[in-house]
Amino acid sequence: MSSISETLVTGVKTSVHPPKRLLYGPGPSQVYPRIYQAMAQPVVGHLDPYFFQVSQGVQKGLRAVFGTENELTIPISATGSGGMETAISNFIESGTKLALFVSGFFAERIGEMAKRHGAEIVRLEKPWGESFSDEEAAEFIRRERPQVVAFVQAETSTGVFQQSKALCDAAHEVDAIVIADCVTSLGAMPVDVDANGIDVAYSCTQKGLSAPPGLSPITISPRAQVRLKERKSTNRSWYFDLALIQDYLTVSHRYHHTASATLFYALHEALAIVEEEGLALRQQRHQKAHVRFVSGIERLGLVMHVAEGHRIWNLNTPRIPEGVNDAKVRAYLLEKHGIEIAGGFGPLAGKIFRIGVMGPLATDEGVDRFLAKFDEAMKETA
Amino acid sequence: MSSISETLVTGVKTSVHPPKRLLYGPGPSQVYPRIYQAMAQPVVGHLDPYFFQVSQGVQKGLRAVFGTENELTIPISATGSGGMETAISNFIESGTKLALFVSGFFAERIGEMAKRHGAEIVRLEKPWGESFSDEEAAEFIRRERPQVVAFVQAETSTGVFQQSKALCDAAHEVDAIVIADCVTSLGAMPVDVDANGIDVAYSCTQKGLSAPPGLSPITISPRAQVRLKERKSTNRSWYFDLALIQDYLTVSHRYHHTASATLFYALHEALAIVEEEGLALRQQRHQKAHVRFVSGIERLGLVMHVAEGHRIWNLNTPRIPEGVNDAKVRAYLLEKHGIEIAGGFGPLAGKIFRIGVMGPLATDEGVDRFLAKFDEAMKETA
Repeated sequence: MSSISETLVTGVKTSVHPPKRLLYGPGPSQVYPRIYQAMAQPVVGHLDPYFFQVSQGVQKGLRAVFGTENELTIPISATGSGGMETAISNFIESGTKLALFVSGFFAERIGEMAKRHGAEIVRLEKPWGESFSDEEAAEFIRRERPQVVAFVQAETSTGVFQQSKALCDAAHEVDAIVIADCVTSLGAMPVDVDANGIDVAYSCTQKGLSAPPGLSPITISPRAQVRLKERKSTNRSWYFDLALIQDYLTVSHRYHHTASATLFYALHEALAIVEEEGLALRQQRHQKAHVRFVSGIERLGLVMHVAEGHRIWNLNTPRIPEGVNDAKVRAYLLEKHGIEIAGGFGPLAGKIFRIGVMGPLATDEGVDRFLAKFDEAMKETA
Repeated sequence: MSSISETLVTGVKTSVHPPKRLLYGPGPSQVYPRIYQAMAQPVVGHLDPYFFQVSQGVQKGLRAVFGTENELTIPISATGSGGMETAISNFIESGTKLALFVSGFFAERIGEMAKRHGAEIVRLEKPWGESFSDEEAAEFIRRERPQVVAFVQAETSTGVFQQSKALCDAAHEVDAIVIADCVTSLGAMPVDVDANGIDVAYSCTQKGLSAPPGLSPITISPRAQVRLKERKSTNRSWYFDLALIQDYLTVSHRYHHTASATLFYALHEALAIVEEEGLALRQQRHQKAHVRFVSGIERLGLVMHVAEGHRIWNLNTPRIPEGVNDAKVRAYLLEKHGIEIAGGFGPLAGKIFRIGVMGPLATDEGVDRFLAKFDEAMKETA
């Protein structure tokens, strides 16, 4: 066996010595120091009364950020893509007709998962970076009459925020349930699950909530719960089977898997921070930081890829100007200033930057500091 | 929205205030303080060069504890049961013939998952707490000629450690691959993947490795990798699709999911601690603590459920003596001394205690302290 000691530093108290990054990428975002303190609290068992007390606090806090009264609102023990697989595997079975709105990478991922779970998929497609109008969304759903509709509320690959009230209304007209990917919006923008009429929404912990990755919050409407009970076949996934997870976390507390107390502590702390600031104020802070970012980046001569009014507040996607070397700018920022941002990929590779302004960085200073370093990086790599 | 502040304490720095437990259950086990320090190190992105450096250290350390040279040895971003689903979903497809050794709960769980992934299952069953002899294991496999064999190396529900060299030899004779559940053995007992001939082994982080739960280490032999490439159908699970995860963590570093830097730090630290102590010494320490535990518990008049020579070192399952109230003893220990142990379940409900002696607690003092409190609990609740 070879040794792992090359990453060990002798004489200090931990083998882990990460560089200090400023996380201005699409996620993970900068973690609040208090969350590290919460994770340093001692682990309790996954069936300990205290674990279920924390779990209950987490459920309440998640209902608030999702904007829902849904009783079944819990974290899945996996990352955001595990939340996506939970949503898909529980509500898609062989032959389920799925209407999918596609204008970015994560919508494609939904399609890929749904195919594996046997869906018959119909797609409405647009170029990456565009959104769907109320009329075209409703018309597509009324024409196709699917059993399930899926869309991405905040498309991390493009920067688009998709409005969904009309889409959900049309889905309910034809008796479909609606799955929404809220991975990037939760905690930073109004997700408004109940007001929009979303039936199944999933997210992550490491973007708008600014905790480390590892759990995927999900919420399920009463309408979707009925659908779940009417399923003909067993979920192909045991790990993501909502009936079993629900029983463990909220009903009998019967063991399903060993949930991580540490990650629940982190999420609890993140939600406590949201509650202390006030959800509406937190969302306004992200909106304000976004507006400041956009006016600053436009002053530097860049153009936003997404049309005004359709942008995610906490993830900005300015186009890369002619003559600017995307990879060089990113490498300069990381190496010189420890600043992480991301580039585009797929059809947007080499065309956009993806710059997150979230959590503790979503302030005037957070924006101004970034813009100064970004300007420097563009000049120094020109 | 209701408030989560009932679990918040005003004026202190975190909303999380767990009781201090001594974790003598089947897992999670007591976490080394250094691991909490590792998790307090700042998060880096899931595509950061430093993340891949930590990931590489983790892979090396996992090869050591698994006892393998397998290149594909990585953590899955889910708990131990997610590792089980990774093993099953990648190596079982519709119609795959699976020979399953069943004498406990986790073997049943493998069967449940395999059914969902379309396996044709043949079972060799024994009462919970017994193990399979080399002869009966080999005879079963030669008779059934399955494509996949699955067994539980350390059965957490019963306390049995299953030897597997003859079993693996027989499987390879009939060209089957072998999946082993090593959730409870890894880090505390010799798993010996290569020496036994195990093809796919998965585990967890919160038992023998004494880190918090959240990741599931898995290792895949070259023989199993060939099998994976020959699969006819696509894995029904996208999240647990090994080809995609392997590509992200070890080949192209192309994004698959957002791995948790924090959980990787914890696992890295846990593996560094194993390396510093020395794997063989650590295993001997667990064996020594086990022997001391058994002689102590027998002095208290209890009888071990599993025959000598077939016991898991780090998880002891003494039978509950006549007249002792299992639930009362457990409640007394938890409330009076903050000590967590577990009872039996399924056919062993009310029949055994499950008492883990692992990680930092696997010492003379750890055993003696436990036995004194346990003796007190039996007397006080009589």
